[in-house]
Amino acid sequence: MARFTPPAADAMRERLLDAARDEFASAGLVGGKLERITAAASSNKAQVFHYFGSKEGLFDALVAETVADTFTEVPLDTSDLAAWAGRLSESYQRRPWAPRLATWHRLERADAPLESVATSYADAVAEVEHAQRAGVLPRAFRPAVLLGLVLHTAELWSATAPEYEPLVQAVTPPRRRQVVVDAVTALLGGKG
Amino acid sequence: MARFTPPAADAMRERLLDAARDEFASAGLVGGKLERITAAASSNKAQVFHYFGSKEGLFDALVAETVADTFTEVPLDTSDLAAWAGRLSESYQRRPWAPRLATWHRLERADAPLESVATSYADAVAEVEHAQRAGVLPRAFRPAVLLGLVLHTAELWSATAPEYEPLVQAVTPPRRRQVVVDAVTALLGGKG
Repeated sequence: MARFTPPAADAMRERLLDAARDEFASAGLVGGKLERITAAASSNKAQVFHYFGSKEGLFDALVAETVADTFTEVPLDTSDLAAWAGRLSESYQRRPWAPRLATWHRLERADAPLESVATSYADAVAEVEHAQRAGVLPRAFRPAVLLGLVLHTAELWSATAPEYEPLVQAVTPPRRRQVVVDAVTALLGGKG
Repeated sequence: MARFTPPAADAMRERLLDAARDEFASAGLVGGKLERITAAASSNKAQVFHYFGSKEGLFDALVAETVADTFTEVPLDTSDLAAWAGRLSESYQRRPWAPRLATWHRLERADAPLESVATSYADAVAEVEHAQRAGVLPRAFRPAVLLGLVLHTAELWSATAPEYEPLVQAVTPPRRRQVVVDAVTALLGGKG
């Protein structure tokens, strides 16, 4: 199968998103500097405005793409939500920018929800509801609450306060993943 | 008993902290404007520097005080962690600035952990460990992991993405609290 080589214009778009990822994950939308992004991408502000319309447009595109990457890398598996949550947690540890960008987005852009993200969440809730109706998942929580709890639990290790980190520094990455698996297993009534 | 009237100097300190709460909870440390804080407090930058040393000093004092307020308002109760988590969750819904400030602090000041907060967490972990040794709490998770899971679960409704909120908007505040209680009960092996 022929490999697809993106045209140069799309390569620049990708370079801008890559540079934006580091800057926005570190400093957020308001704190992030467009100058640093364009310098790192060997680009300029005109190209940012051409591809994304504004600094906010670049941030939103980056957040939407990052959430989509997560769902692509760790597709929802309602047949084993605990294992899925463990994989999500591991993905967040490997891609720390993903939960950070989502958190900046929640704090700084709550008034600008992203349509593609809303669709992904709605689709996932529908899958959970389907699995509950089929008897694959327990019905103690309504679908959106159950999925919300599982997504939140998967973010445990990405949300640790700097003052709390020393108290759990002995917990290794594989053990961190297992904690998430065990916690979601417990949420599901101990049956995984 | 005589009521304590703080001297005027401390009243100004409190006014600055109150104004800082609104500004920093909304916009974070970097995005928050000192001019808006001093205007809202009928104060000036010189007084900020007198009391807190810097904008960062004001932010840190505010975060430390807010965490202390939470532990004062909702003291740890290892005899019923699920009910405690429910009260914490309710406290966060009533004081939305508390989880927001903690999140900004984690994103913007991870390199400046607050000693008083670290002490509160360490004390709480020690209490959980004591309760586990006494057989009051299950030992499936080590103390710091168990407390971390419970604290994180209590923040569920404060961490909802803007795209997820419409999917759970029918979940009323009392029900939100109950979800947290039920989730922590499950974490503890269903025995609450």
